[in-house]
Amino acid sequence: MGGSIKRLAILGSTGSIGQQTLEVVRVLPHRFRILGLAAGQNTELLAKQISEFQPKFVCHQDKEALTHLTNAEYEFLSLEEIASHSQVDIVVIATSGKSGLLPTLAALKAGKNVALANKESLVMAGDIITSEAKLNSARILPIDSEHSAIWQCLHGETKELAQLILTASGGPFRHYSPAQLNGVTVEQALKHPSWQMGKKVTIDSATLMNKGLEVIEAHWLFDMPFDNIQVVIHPQSIIHSMVEFVDGSVKAQLSYPDMRLPIQYALSYPERLPNPQLPKLNWENINSLTFEQPDFDNFPCLKLAIEAGRKGGTCPAVLCAADEVAVELFLSRRIKFTDIAHLVERALEQHQVIAHPGLNEILEADGWAREKVSQLATGDNLC
Amino acid sequence: MGGSIKRLAILGSTGSIGQQTLEVVRVLPHRFRILGLAAGQNTELLAKQISEFQPKFVCHQDKEALTHLTNAEYEFLSLEEIASHSQVDIVVIATSGKSGLLPTLAALKAGKNVALANKESLVMAGDIITSEAKLNSARILPIDSEHSAIWQCLHGETKELAQLILTASGGPFRHYSPAQLNGVTVEQALKHPSWQMGKKVTIDSATLMNKGLEVIEAHWLFDMPFDNIQVVIHPQSIIHSMVEFVDGSVKAQLSYPDMRLPIQYALSYPERLPNPQLPKLNWENINSLTFEQPDFDNFPCLKLAIEAGRKGGTCPAVLCAADEVAVELFLSRRIKFTDIAHLVERALEQHQVIAHPGLNEILEADGWAREKVSQLATGDNLC
Repeated sequence: MGGSIKRLAILGSTGSIGQQTLEVVRVLPHRFRILGLAAGQNTELLAKQISEFQPKFVCHQDKEALTHLTNAEYEFLSLEEIASHSQVDIVVIATSGKSGLLPTLAALKAGKNVALANKESLVMAGDIITSEAKLNSARILPIDSEHSAIWQCLHGETKELAQLILTASGGPFRHYSPAQLNGVTVEQALKHPSWQMGKKVTIDSATLMNKGLEVIEAHWLFDMPFDNIQVVIHPQSIIHSMVEFVDGSVKAQLSYPDMRLPIQYALSYPERLPNPQLPKLNWENINSLTFEQPDFDNFPCLKLAIEAGRKGGTCPAVLCAADEVAVELFLSRRIKFTDIAHLVERALEQHQVIAHPGLNEILEADGWAREKVSQLATGDNLC
Repeated sequence: MGGSIKRLAILGSTGSIGQQTLEVVRVLPHRFRILGLAAGQNTELLAKQISEFQPKFVCHQDKEALTHLTNAEYEFLSLEEIASHSQVDIVVIATSGKSGLLPTLAALKAGKNVALANKESLVMAGDIITSEAKLNSARILPIDSEHSAIWQCLHGETKELAQLILTASGGPFRHYSPAQLNGVTVEQALKHPSWQMGKKVTIDSATLMNKGLEVIEAHWLFDMPFDNIQVVIHPQSIIHSMVEFVDGSVKAQLSYPDMRLPIQYALSYPERLPNPQLPKLNWENINSLTFEQPDFDNFPCLKLAIEAGRKGGTCPAVLCAADEVAVELFLSRRIKFTDIAHLVERALEQHQVIAHPGLNEILEADGWAREKVSQLATGDNLC
């Protein structure tokens, strides 16, 4: 149980993934040390985290409020400064939406390993991010349970791959009729059957946009053509994803749905560490694992995302940005659940694709899509 | 698709595993060449195999009959001579019962890699066989689907193991009452719901003795204490076994029940080779994978085997031999299905265990158990 101590920076420490990362660190203090914490809101929780974990560097928008809440000593830095700091070994990107993109790039440019929970940065700028990682011999350590599953299945055996099989819980509405989907409320959509997650991801799981974004991520993370990535609905969320090899053999990774496992694996990789708090599968209680095909008609976001991934260029950035705004509009009860897909689809239709965009063009496409969805949503002819 | 040609000897080429090994070789002639074939009976089929695969060495009990059936040129050798021949790279041990033991040892002593389908040799003499393999830097490449699954899951990640989870189809009688089990016929017992196998293994699957033998094999192959080997009933035989790591993460290997996959993996290891004849999992047709706990009361062979494994010494050899004779007696309709367990249990009870037996003591225990079971079966007080 020796092993060196890894020094972590967590960007988005007060969110769901950030908090669970700190839970892992709390159990394994002999292996991990928190060097930096960053949070956008929730000043109170950040102050508590600072008092407990005593980071050297902090990023927060309301410095003054924070200073009132904690006596700990630390230095205020920007997200990018923390992400690229020479003393940091692993940067955990646990922010949601596009805010993860620039710090991810900053960390990779500085040769840091990035434990990536933020989907959007890889979806928006997969080519740029993976190139940057390669250029600087930095690793992207996936935290998403699906990509962690694939990564674990590929540990020691990366060649002779035939396809990736991403599992999806299917969300709370997988057997809803179109009429039922049309009437879904915010409260219903925020109740995920198997995972505890942030609001944005929970809504994306209900529309299956989340799975579509994961298909694009898997394409970049594992250098796999879209034709060789399959989505299977698996409501129990026990099999987190699978890998098929050229001989037809399939490897799967299983565990109860608990994000602390993929978080810990990303941090401890290539080792595995015992953690008594992580639940172990109990085969006396697991009676059945079921599988269904995804319904692309009732859940058009999945199809939109895969199509945007195939088209490439600025399309995935538009997809992400349009979805982010549409989900916000739904959460603030200004559009219907089914309007999320409509708005994303119309933004994608109206977008002038740039085939091989640089970072600025990606950010411009992002800005364009946000404005477009806001316009479309305030127009009269939404549906 | 380069790669060298591996030269194989198949001992037991006319049995189920032997024939399926030749099917694999037939599809991949650029990677495998048959150098030796051995079969105890079925002279006609052996002659056909010789004509097709043109081995250099053959072992068969009826030389004269064989010579009449084929014009091919080959040299007659003993099992041990073929198994240890300098030109052979991999020896496939596909014989059933204890006849696999001596050729396995001969192959390992000669430093050959042994693709092992024969359970009994590892169960009877696990300590001797694994020591011999280590001593001569020879590999034991498991062909059993369960051990192949575990071996595949451990590829690239052998450390930080917590437990092995062996799956079992449960056989055709898993929900039978004691009275129903008492009346099971040979015909019923030979119909396995998911696997096509030889008679001995099929009966052992129906009694769950097969799974018990596999627990002992897993103990030796993966150096795992019996307390860390779990058996789970999984009637669909899609998940072939699983491995749990110290962080609670579980890896599973999946495929349709088809022995050609584990056979091919053992032969191609550490590579995987495309083989269009191997069926690929179709997730449109897989609706549910189910799991149950094994019934140790109705299937006492499972418990007897695990207990014999724990006791060690000559117990597993007695278990194997007693079971082999009892299964023969059942197949020849001289005892009832449930008598198999009774006979094995009584042989184990009456055996004077030798704690650290040499090969001769193991073979003596084997002989003793065979005689004992025959005596018990002809006695009046069977049940």
